[in-house]
Amino acid sequence: MLQTPWEYRYANRTQRMGSSVIRELLKLTEQPDIISFAGGLPAPEVFPVKQFKEACIEVLETNGAQALQYGTTEGYRPLREMIARHTGRYSVNITAENILITSGSQQALDLLGRLFINQGDHIVVESPTYLGALQAWNAYGAQYISVPSDENGMVVDELEKALRIGPKFIYVLPNFQNPSGTTLSLERRMRLVELADRYGVPIIEDDPYGQLRYEGDHLPSVVSLDAQYRGDEMAFTGNVIYLSTFSKLLAPGIRLAWVIAPAQVIRKLVMAKQAADLHTATFNQIVAYEVGKGGFLDEHVKFIRQVYKERRDVMLETMEEVWPKETRWTHPEGGMFLWGILPQDMDAAEVLKVALNQKVAFVPGGPFHPNGGGQNTMRINFSYSTPENIREGMTRLGLTLQDLIHNKGSH
Amino acid sequence: MLQTPWEYRYANRTQRMGSSVIRELLKLTEQPDIISFAGGLPAPEVFPVKQFKEACIEVLETNGAQALQYGTTEGYRPLREMIARHTGRYSVNITAENILITSGSQQALDLLGRLFINQGDHIVVESPTYLGALQAWNAYGAQYISVPSDENGMVVDELEKALRIGPKFIYVLPNFQNPSGTTLSLERRMRLVELADRYGVPIIEDDPYGQLRYEGDHLPSVVSLDAQYRGDEMAFTGNVIYLSTFSKLLAPGIRLAWVIAPAQVIRKLVMAKQAADLHTATFNQIVAYEVGKGGFLDEHVKFIRQVYKERRDVMLETMEEVWPKETRWTHPEGGMFLWGILPQDMDAAEVLKVALNQKVAFVPGGPFHPNGGGQNTMRINFSYSTPENIREGMTRLGLTLQDLIHNKGSH
Repeated sequence: MLQTPWEYRYANRTQRMGSSVIRELLKLTEQPDIISFAGGLPAPEVFPVKQFKEACIEVLETNGAQALQYGTTEGYRPLREMIARHTGRYSVNITAENILITSGSQQALDLLGRLFINQGDHIVVESPTYLGALQAWNAYGAQYISVPSDENGMVVDELEKALRIGPKFIYVLPNFQNPSGTTLSLERRMRLVELADRYGVPIIEDDPYGQLRYEGDHLPSVVSLDAQYRGDEMAFTGNVIYLSTFSKLLAPGIRLAWVIAPAQVIRKLVMAKQAADLHTATFNQIVAYEVGKGGFLDEHVKFIRQVYKERRDVMLETMEEVWPKETRWTHPEGGMFLWGILPQDMDAAEVLKVALNQKVAFVPGGPFHPNGGGQNTMRINFSYSTPENIREGMTRLGLTLQDLIHNKGSH
Repeated sequence: MLQTPWEYRYANRTQRMGSSVIRELLKLTEQPDIISFAGGLPAPEVFPVKQFKEACIEVLETNGAQALQYGTTEGYRPLREMIARHTGRYSVNITAENILITSGSQQALDLLGRLFINQGDHIVVESPTYLGALQAWNAYGAQYISVPSDENGMVVDELEKALRIGPKFIYVLPNFQNPSGTTLSLERRMRLVELADRYGVPIIEDDPYGQLRYEGDHLPSVVSLDAQYRGDEMAFTGNVIYLSTFSKLLAPGIRLAWVIAPAQVIRKLVMAKQAADLHTATFNQIVAYEVGKGGFLDEHVKFIRQVYKERRDVMLETMEEVWPKETRWTHPEGGMFLWGILPQDMDAAEVLKVALNQKVAFVPGGPFHPNGGGQNTMRINFSYSTPENIREGMTRLGLTLQDLIHNKGSH
């Protein structure tokens, strides 16, 4: 077939854009007869559809001309002020000048890559880590220094070696990490802040799930510990950039997230965002503000916690009952994922092929490890499927594993 | 003041992110007592607020779970199919596989830069050209070959020299160009297609205003002429990538635009977009589809044409009456801008300072010329202000110019 001249003109960086494993797998979740633990989707049952409808009507009846017009790159000021107040409750004093609204957290990761990563720069990541961050930063030619994780998150004792390599920054998801579901302990958070300060290496704290805790006590964010540690206003000299999102608290389909950073970094991010997409949809920002302004989020998050806690518990119970004793898994205190660990010699990608025949799906853990390893691990989502489907799907998966481990799948 | 470690860690490309002239000027438009012809804003009076409200209600009542959930990177299929059908009316046969939905045209420009531009690559542009494209591509280290324009758009006879330099692509806004308001003649469009084919250099056709024509006949798009020229299905082997947007037909605050390209280029753009922001807001896409699906856009565009034609006419009349005979301006057949040309020795940036004292604003034309020049030109928007304000503001501006030209501003 004839090819267009475009085909011979891709930029060098285009070679670094791999077809995404997550994306290919999300396609599986679209087959209606599959019970999928593969995606990272919130339960549609928790979307505040009624509140959105009321907010859309209110905004369009009273403020349509502003809501449908171009807006500022920084984002809708009342929304930024609302986020600043909310963040203040967790002992980080900031103002709207410390906040940039982004088109989902994926854009925040991309803009940070654009701002900070040169070809060949080293980034310290947990292993496993969030695939979306790797995808964003691969485009800028990042290399990764993997620090291993255990049940309490990144093994911070291993971090010092990594910091001596001279990384650009440390990327960490301290709460109910995607993919592993683990939480960085308070002791490790404090040690992380200290070490980062000592080596002069800043930190990106990605916290999409922080409020979705189903047991145990809230732990202070790394950004707030950093502010305490330096006895400083984070607003100007902080060592930590903090990311969060409305995708899990309200709905991902509105694509609203935010970056919290020193004001001068926000100004640079604004320039990057202006070139990237000018601004995030005004309408969505004003509607989200309208939904959130009366304190609805606090009520709503309690409801989400209740729904997801039940799903997590059903998943853990089913695994206890059905999964082979040779397998292990994390016990997430919140979030949307748990992490299954198979015997060392098993390959989760091979397990997935068998599981798909049983109409059940998950994500093999390998791709979450930027420097290899983790072939025997699997990411399992518990937020999206109903409790009945979780029981059914995890039973199928457990029996599949029983068969593979005990009969070596040979019948 | 103490600085954060982030300050020492910006990537090399960060130096190429200039603070935007447009952005600083848009701030002026926020002062309520200024009559601003500086922005590129649609008139809020033409936003279909009622239709949006009805669509939001309908979508949330019948399809809330999908509208608020994550979506595919390519975009909402029924919306892409609607755009494909619409494009088919202009004799370009495409399918949904040729379309990527983007978060505004700015994102389309950014993704194309990401996909095609290496540091130092040359891009052929009209001079003047759209500032947002320069901003997007500066970040990737583009260099520009400027081809001069006149009343009939790019002087295509000058193009051949530019093509021998070996540019990556040609960027052209054929209809009612931003900033100059001029339209590329049919003869030049055909010559552009021929020359691009002969030298094997592809074309990006940016067409945000194509439907906003107030006089004269619709001219075939460059993409359709290219398809004709090669007697080929554009869908697979076309030499032209075409961009358009809902920002001017519906509303910019929903950030919805699209790219039309050969299917294999769309697949690469999808990978780039996935890393950039995962996908464009599902809610906005479904609402826009709901607003547009019954043929509303065809009716609505007639209304917009009527409103903007009146504003353009009032502007042209006022200029005829009040502006000094030493000045010239374009006569745009559509779009949102006209282009003022002052005597060669005048500096429009200096004029702006005086004009701001008279509470009237425009954009000096210099920055639209990537390789310099155009200091004596100005971009004037006629879509945003009411006819009364246009008359008042253009009179003030005309008198200011009279004063500056005839009294050399010395009193």
